Amino acid sequence: MKIAFIGLGIMGFPMAGHLANARHDVTVFNRTAEKASRWTKNYSGSVAITPKIASKECDIVFVCVGNDDDLRSVVLGDNGVLNGMKANSILIDHTTASADVARELFTACSQQSIGFIDAPVSGGQQGAENGQLTIMCGGENGIFKQAESIMDCYAKQISLMGPAGSGQLTKMVNQICIAGLVQGLAEGLQFAENAGLDAHKVIEVISKGAAQSWQMDNRHETMIKGEYEHGFAVDWMRKDLGICFDEARGNGSQLPVAALVDQFYAGVQADGGGRWDTSSLKGRLK
Amino acid sequence: MKIAFIGLGIMGFPMAGHLANARHDVTVFNRTAEKASRWTKNYSGSVAITPKIASKECDIVFVCVGNDDDLRSVVLGDNGVLNGMKANSILIDHTTASADVARELFTACSQQSIGFIDAPVSGGQQGAENGQLTIMCGGENGIFKQAESIMDCYAKQISLMGPAGSGQLTKMVNQICIAGLVQGLAEGLQFAENAGLDAHKVIEVISKGAAQSWQMDNRHETMIKGEYEHGFAVDWMRKDLGICFDEARGNGSQLPVAALVDQFYAGVQADGGGRWDTSSLKGRLK
Repeated sequence: MKIAFIGLGIMGFPMAGHLANARHDVTVFNRTAEKASRWTKNYSGSVAITPKIASKECDIVFVCVGNDDDLRSVVLGDNGVLNGMKANSILIDHTTASADVARELFTACSQQSIGFIDAPVSGGQQGAENGQLTIMCGGENGIFKQAESIMDCYAKQISLMGPAGSGQLTKMVNQICIAGLVQGLAEGLQFAENAGLDAHKVIEVISKGAAQSWQMDNRHETMIKGEYEHGFAVDWMRKDLGICFDEARGNGSQLPVAALVDQFYAGVQADGGGRWDTSSLKGRLK
Repeated sequence: MKIAFIGLGIMGFPMAGHLANARHDVTVFNRTAEKASRWTKNYSGSVAITPKIASKECDIVFVCVGNDDDLRSVVLGDNGVLNGMKANSILIDHTTASADVARELFTACSQQSIGFIDAPVSGGQQGAENGQLTIMCGGENGIFKQAESIMDCYAKQISLMGPAGSGQLTKMVNQICIAGLVQGLAEGLQFAENAGLDAHKVIEVISKGAAQSWQMDNRHETMIKGEYEHGFAVDWMRKDLGICFDEARGNGSQLPVAALVDQFYAGVQADGGGRWDTSSLKGRLK
């Protein structure tokens, strides 16, 4: 397949690499050109100087950028992919973005007979590198089936959740659950330390029961050490939670704990921890 | 062994039963006598009319009652177990209570050369019935070793966490973690429903990743259905969280989300849901 990949961040870089390794004909574009040329040193493929040029004659175009505005720019802008893509091709968006922009892009694509799938991922940098991502998709079933077979090279699970925007909405549920969960874990660990308990031993015991979570299993060690320079950055979490709150304003959901935790994340940012892992909530509790 | 068991609630009833089934010589006491005579219809053992009488000549006395006050009454009162127990016997307290009362009982026991272990449990009614409880202990190692071998008949894990009170402190960490976690899950599920997603499908996808938890795995089904007449009651959770806040006031811990969730639980109680499972937080989010 002839493929374009727009956006070589810590997720897009290895994902585009998996596509190249799967012997697709991959052309990449990245805003910072240096990263694109670094990509070609690691993988077989070529570099284009605009998203539009990268997308020319492609069967599938992938986008994985920062936010709604970046996404509109690389898709709908003068040099965007929709000015390069041909009819009956497919646009797959891996950005975590709003459901609104997903629906907007779906409509714009439909007008050019291009298929569109919103496909935010979870699994982090490690999942992207190991090809073990979970991909939550929104769109039409026929298009999804085609997209699924291509994304398979970097995914452990790919699910169609409903019409355009449903992938984004599912990712939001994920982030809302994590917000309360991580803060609860942070409060518990802090309490354990202040109570003079051996926090490792406490986790060993309570992780067998009703307090267990992926975050407890995978983050307690670094939370106890106070190490946060890894994982999923607070800046990204705040971006994602912002999307959740906008959507919740529209659909009438109440998110009191997610909103409170978002404010704690603002505190982490104020402390200079915007690039720290979401588990750094623990660092604010002494 | 000659054993007394004080308090035949939904936890104590089956736990005392496991001890009887393990061929110990068990005498039970319960404030409501009817429950004690029902117990003797299910298990081999006898009933005493006071904790003091039940404890006479016993090697081990177990207590599993409602709160600190109940505990002081059945242990330290005129008819309490410490007026019946002999030197070199052991008192094991399965009540979820404060660390302060655990230290107080440890001291009172020591003055009579009686061993004391605070041993709150997790695993709920089902864990008690199946003999699969997790037991978090505080006390001295030599006494713990003796207690451990007896408790084994209803436990899947028994851990000594530190000196007297450490079992209670560990249980508190467990409850603090759960508070934030369950509310996060409730907010996420509510958002999924309001966003028009298939909540079952969403959980199927996100439970493979960083949002996973025991509560998600074991409670999403009933939360989606709005069924809460099972599990761990909100009234008990509020009692436990109250203990956490008292302790946190002393050890300097900050519990902002646990405190907020406690207020939501107050709302569940006001709605008549004091006996509902802790996952009923979901019911307050439409």
